[in-house]
Amino acid sequence: MIISKKLSLQTRGNGDTHDITGIVAQAVRESGLKSGTVTLFCPSSTSGLTTIEFEPGAVADLQRVFDEMVPAGVEYRHNERWGDGNGHSHVRASLLGASFVVPFVDGTLTLGTWQQIIYVDFDIRPRHREIVAQIMGE
Amino acid sequence: MIISKKLSLQTRGNGDTHDITGIVAQAVRESGLKSGTVTLFCPSSTSGLTTIEFEPGAVADLQRVFDEMVPAGVEYRHNERWGDGNGHSHVRASLLGASFVVPFVDGTLTLGTWQQIIYVDFDIRPRHREIVAQIMGE
Amino acid sequence: MIISKKLSLQTRGNGDTHDITGIVAQAVRESGLKSGTVTLFCPSSTSGLTTIEFEPGAVADLQRVFDEMVPAGVEYRHNERWGDGNGHSHVRASLLGASFVVPFVDGTLTLGTWQQIIYVDFDIRPRHREIVAQIMGE
Repeated sequence: MIISKKLSLQTRGNGDTHDITGIVAQAVRESGLKSGTVTLFCPSSTSGLTTIEFEPGAVADLQRVFDEMVPAGVEYRHNERWGDGNGHSHVRASLLGASFVVPFVDGTLTLGTWQQIIYVDFDIRPRHREIVAQIMGE
Repeated sequence: MIISKKLSLQTRGNGDTHDITGIVAQAVRESGLKSGTVTLFCPSSTSGLTTIEFEPGAVADLQRVFDEMVPAGVEYRHNERWGDGNGHSHVRASLLGASFVVPFVDGTLTLGTWQQIIYVDFDIRPRHREIVAQIMGE
Repeated sequence: MIISKKLSLQTRGNGDTHDITGIVAQAVRESGLKSGTVTLFCPSSTSGLTTIEFEPGAVADLQRVFDEMVPAGVEYRHNERWGDGNGHSHVRASLLGASFVVPFVDGTLTLGTWQQIIYVDFDIRPRHREIVAQIMGE
């Protein structure tokens, strides 16, 4: 059985990080499936998905490391081409990855106690975002 | 239903980046499946997969960031051992990841308008490559 | 068909890297499934999964790059909050990723000849770990 859903978010950009665990868990519950995987996918080239212990310290640390590894204030050839100033957003998104797969068993995501699924919007302005949730199982 | 395919590529190495969206979309079409996921996998330890806005600027920016984060010209213990000079290729591939999962709905990959799937060959010489595409769905 | 398993590991922390290919391959064999995917998932926010050529040189190189990109000896806001000293472990785990999907065909993982699946424990002390293996196929 396959159930396709879309999860909506309003983001502020510049690394804005959302805990989407609740809406993913709800989508799995609503699917009625008991065991399987949910494939989360950003149909975007300036955002990504991962897990973290969602507390402000760890979220700020991840943001700082991206600021250092892929700084905003240097030259990007993407910016020269399009003039949209979000070259660093594209590189950060490619590194983090637009796809993330989480198993569920007995209708429950197999996350750790201190582990949440996050959506990170690296773009440089507020956006309305949709995440694809492809729920496959039985 | 599960359909296994292999996608072939001829690469030049040293970060050579291929837009594989077209051949992935074709594999999904040929499978006849309407909804599911395609799991792309590099059976290689010197290449990886992600998505990007596939234009020369963004591709060059991603390449430059890998050159800075994991430079080619420093010492790698892998090189000391094997003398094959591609220690940086291995580390870059492990960081980017050999596996990438993309949902499809109504027979169409759920990519964004400006988002393409890329295969990045980090090895230091031209190679013939095969990517596994495991298509699961209904 | 979906088979859920748990793989157990005893780790030493601080980047301790385990080749889990053998136990993943065994889990797939025991499932009796011939073709599909195994989704590996760390229910943890201080460890991650990827592939590498599992020889001591390449493993040490990957470890060194994490030490440089996300050093242990700098200030982390996670540490200020919890005082547990593993802020760098959290950031490294989020970057590497807690989820990894490997296809199998004819009951065999589609890995390359020199490619192994690794579990990297970034936490700063020895731990007992369990990895979820969600095996889906036919």
